Amino acid sequence: MNIIVPARLNEAKDTMILLDQTLLPVEKKFIEVSKLEDIWEAIKKLRVRGAPAIGVAAGFGIYLGVKDSKADRFQDFYEEFMVAKEYLASSRPTAVNLFWALDRIESRLIREKEKRIEEIKKCLLEESEEILRQDQDMCRAISEYGLSLLKPEMGLLTHCNAGGIATSGYGTALGPMYLGHEKGYNFKVYADETRPLLQGSRLTAWELNEAGIDVTVICDNMASVVMKEGRIDAILVGCDRVAANGDAANKIGTSGVAILAKEYNIPFYVLGPTSTIDMNTKTGDDIEIEQRDSKEIYNGFGRQTAPTEVKFYNPAFDVTDHKYITAIITEKGIIKPPFTENLAKLFE
Amino acid sequence: MNIIVPARLNEAKDTMILLDQTLLPVEKKFIEVSKLEDIWEAIKKLRVRGAPAIGVAAGFGIYLGVKDSKADRFQDFYEEFMVAKEYLASSRPTAVNLFWALDRIESRLIREKEKRIEEIKKCLLEESEEILRQDQDMCRAISEYGLSLLKPEMGLLTHCNAGGIATSGYGTALGPMYLGHEKGYNFKVYADETRPLLQGSRLTAWELNEAGIDVTVICDNMASVVMKEGRIDAILVGCDRVAANGDAANKIGTSGVAILAKEYNIPFYVLGPTSTIDMNTKTGDDIEIEQRDSKEIYNGFGRQTAPTEVKFYNPAFDVTDHKYITAIITEKGIIKPPFTENLAKLFE
Repeated sequence: MNIIVPARLNEAKDTMILLDQTLLPVEKKFIEVSKLEDIWEAIKKLRVRGAPAIGVAAGFGIYLGVKDSKADRFQDFYEEFMVAKEYLASSRPTAVNLFWALDRIESRLIREKEKRIEEIKKCLLEESEEILRQDQDMCRAISEYGLSLLKPEMGLLTHCNAGGIATSGYGTALGPMYLGHEKGYNFKVYADETRPLLQGSRLTAWELNEAGIDVTVICDNMASVVMKEGRIDAILVGCDRVAANGDAANKIGTSGVAILAKEYNIPFYVLGPTSTIDMNTKTGDDIEIEQRDSKEIYNGFGRQTAPTEVKFYNPAFDVTDHKYITAIITEKGIIKPPFTENLAKLFE
Repeated sequence: MNIIVPARLNEAKDTMILLDQTLLPVEKKFIEVSKLEDIWEAIKKLRVRGAPAIGVAAGFGIYLGVKDSKADRFQDFYEEFMVAKEYLASSRPTAVNLFWALDRIESRLIREKEKRIEEIKKCLLEESEEILRQDQDMCRAISEYGLSLLKPEMGLLTHCNAGGIATSGYGTALGPMYLGHEKGYNFKVYADETRPLLQGSRLTAWELNEAGIDVTVICDNMASVVMKEGRIDAILVGCDRVAANGDAANKIGTSGVAILAKEYNIPFYVLGPTSTIDMNTKTGDDIEIEQRDSKEIYNGFGRQTAPTEVKFYNPAFDVTDHKYITAIITEKGIIKPPFTENLAKLFE
């Protein structure tokens, strides 16, 4: 199966190969970058996107940025590293995973300060490969737990893109679909297009189709009718943050899909790494919802589709109440209700 | 208040004035037509749209088409009329209301056959004015019944466009909003953009804003969050066909909105003339759903937004189960559950 890794190192040439996601779904093009400026530009312009994938790109990026350093004293090398780190960090100042990855590489650097510079460089490479591998392991574990809840020939619905091209492999919500496809499960996947930014039709449909999975795009408001017609046996979505009581913030529209699922008696699964579970957030009411530019609604795709004189309301996320969630699927296992109790156990 | 009549006669000049709806929401332009060819083109190219408005345009159109006839014998005049009628009917062969209006004018013509030609022409004008007036009366009655269920300062949600510019005045679902606005009710209206064809953002938002009503456009998948946040006190939608048990076919997405409304305990009203209630259709299961071109989904904004290799599912309508409907509002009154019983009474 053709699983796309959106950011990976070409070790033979000391370059990074990135899927240029800004060209999707029209064109599938990989770019090969080695200079720090080009890596910065790729993150800035969203050629690489998705928290895990950005982390991986940042890891390889900082390694490529310092690997040709002529420094032979640690202090000089560290200073060069820090210049490169600050520079890469400025590419997308809101991407938490970008900082997380750069900090992680820096910690490793400091840990290895007694080694020779050439050896330290190898450690940085090792650390960025470890970021990639851990992401792949996490996706794989989520995929396996998720697949254990599904049966061959099922119809599956997903919203937005919690997919492979946001991570380094299987993705989260799409992971069980890929794994099931490898095992010949023959799923029929429905992808909500996911207005306003259309991650479902632009990205999810594209990557599932690339892997040879049967995928049908619907507009968001068609979710009710496909459920009613019996086309959907389970719903799989990702998450941005899960509160201690199981309330889950995810792309706008997710909560509506969950309510329809409950009405039609279809299981609704939220998939994500345990790092998205925030035990300090008591309930979904404590999650602040980002409001985005109204232009995404009235002029999302090169043509004006609403009068500009009216108001717009454009929340980026919504919170799905835990009462609509059948299970939360993480790399550490499947958490079922009561969520307050069972999520707490997970972190004991 | 500025209520737009999308098709009306300019009697002083013997022309018809049409709002060119193909230019909305970017430009508000009225065109003035008198030749049969121009009227045909306006219907064909959807410059005038909405079943009631098409009926009105056809009525005035056929009058304008024959009013300069030189015929002085009935048989000659009738033949000229029939040529014009066939021609206008060919402009949009699927628009039932187009045929209904043309047949109605023809019946009047036949009824008046003993009169002089000049007098018959006046009768045709009278009949087309009657079509307009009856449509306005119907909208007005629906608006009044609808408004009786609402209170000042309410937040209202609507889906698609069952508005003034589809009829000759207040529209159906938007009628109570206009009437309430006249009475200073100060509604806050939320309009679902209504993918794939965006009638909500292109038309509903435009016409409500023209009338000075406070309107906010949301993407379809934001309906859940605005309901959850307490912004919505009632939901008003139109209908294409209502079955004898109250199941209502309307624009795709309506059934999902209805399910959310039930979950959030918000009243859900379906508004339409009694002519859309079909007692020969037992339940919604008997309503066939039109499938439309997938291009509306993957290339609806003037730019490709999904890979063309995947499948698409694009039903034009869905059926809202009667159990989610609080009341059906017609020009003859408000019908509440049990619908099978109460709709039957209406037609006794």
